[in-house]
Amino acid sequence: VSDVGIVGLGLIGGSLARDLAAAGRRVVATDRSGAAVAQARGKGIVATELDPDEPPPLVVLAVPVRATPDWIRRLAGSTRPDLVVTDTGSTKRSILDAARGAGLDGFVGSHPVAGSHESGWDASRTGLFRGADVWICPGRDSAPGSIDAVERLWRDVGGRPRRIDAGEHDRLLARCSHLPQLVATALGTALSRLGLPPEALGPGGRDTTRLAASDAAMWTDILLDNADEVRPAIEALADALEELDSAITDGDEQRLRALLAGAREWKAGPS
Amino acid sequence: VSDVGIVGLGLIGGSLARDLAAAGRRVVATDRSGAAVAQARGKGIVATELDPDEPPPLVVLAVPVRATPDWIRRLAGSTRPDLVVTDTGSTKRSILDAARGAGLDGFVGSHPVAGSHESGWDASRTGLFRGADVWICPGRDSAPGSIDAVERLWRDVGGRPRRIDAGEHDRLLARCSHLPQLVATALGTALSRLGLPPEALGPGGRDTTRLAASDAAMWTDILLDNADEVRPAIEALADALEELDSAITDGDEQRLRALLAGAREWKAGPS
Repeated sequence: VSDVGIVGLGLIGGSLARDLAAAGRRVVATDRSGAAVAQARGKGIVATELDPDEPPPLVVLAVPVRATPDWIRRLAGSTRPDLVVTDTGSTKRSILDAARGAGLDGFVGSHPVAGSHESGWDASRTGLFRGADVWICPGRDSAPGSIDAVERLWRDVGGRPRRIDAGEHDRLLARCSHLPQLVATALGTALSRLGLPPEALGPGGRDTTRLAASDAAMWTDILLDNADEVRPAIEALADALEELDSAITDGDEQRLRALLAGAREWKAGPS
Repeated sequence: VSDVGIVGLGLIGGSLARDLAAAGRRVVATDRSGAAVAQARGKGIVATELDPDEPPPLVVLAVPVRATPDWIRRLAGSTRPDLVVTDTGSTKRSILDAARGAGLDGFVGSHPVAGSHESGWDASRTGLFRGADVWICPGRDSAPGSIDAVERLWRDVGGRPRRIDAGEHDRLLARCSHLPQLVATALGTALSRLGLPPEALGPGGRDTTRLAASDAAMWTDILLDNADEVRPAIEALADALEELDSAITDGDEQRLRALLAGAREWKAGPS
């Protein structure tokens, strides 16, 4: 069984390193933070520092979306011709474009639907990918062997690979992930400005704002990278909010109840 | 120890009945649904049907906000001059007004901050109020004895009574509870219209939309009753959302990161 390289030992990369090491794989890794690498080495999770010029056969880029293209270019210049590279980012079109631009034929996009509002090595843990869907976006020129290698990696840590077109992926994620993040951030912003301390929230308000605690730099990247898909999703939300506001302003009981019941039926199924 | 009356055996009334019965209190109750009363009697939780003309010394109205004033008027006409009545609604001004209008001096408003997106007798359970804040809004003419009786009731089921002015309560709740409900409903509405099935959500999206499953009729009442406080809260949210949208549209990385970081700092504390 060959070595696996991991770039970035945050929540995703760190958790992947833990699971792979536990499964007996030799992990070589690097991180902006020498402290994360030192801790991972100290625990025997990472064997040694990854050398980008002489990478192992399979490398996972678990860095923010914006930092990924640089790493793709860096690895495209390595000495290994059969190198397979994947990533873990929440957007896929721009990253596949970068791989094509760099001529990195062995690139296959991945997006494990796992994680939380927490971030960093300290938040990483074993079992993060168990049962999680992992979106797999092959590039136009990806060799079947590269795709297999990447899917096998995710299966080895309990994930469920699902192939999807990059454009479809980015549209889906704008809706199911990026919009909820924005909603939680907008709600947190509004409540903060209204002077409400987060301790004043009940269980419902705490859940609705949970994602507001997510990493700001990571989400800035994702939202700007996927702006063309995120904006129509925001518009759909703003429309729904305005309809609720109008119904409340007009005292339109029937309309308000229909909106509440429609969302309820979507979420909970017919009552 | 005297009997307690409960009107409405839904999530709140049913859970209260369970806890009081378990604590050895004799509970008399009524509900629109004969089935809920029959089930509660069958389990020995409710002793007998409540007779509004001859109520026990303390009655809890656990019916929707809109149905509460009718019950207040009904009980004001009972034969018991020292009757103490409280409610469990999410708004307090209109209910205190109704009690004053009906001349029910023994009325003290309550709002236990407990519950969930679930509703009905089947969702009721023991221990729902354990550790929960319970807002107590005395009326202008409430006798100290009435307030004590109501606070003692909540303490008996593990709640923590906290006195608050009704106007302050309604403003606070518009922000910490009614706005999160609207946000979850708006998000559910938007995602439903965009054709996204709820199963497509990850853990974050599931939490952000959890409240969308709440009871539509109950929330229609609450939102219309508290419209004057809810509307400025919606406006604050719409402003925050528009700022996020503008930053994304303009590719204004600095502004977008500042908004995300501000909400993060509010939610999670300084990072």
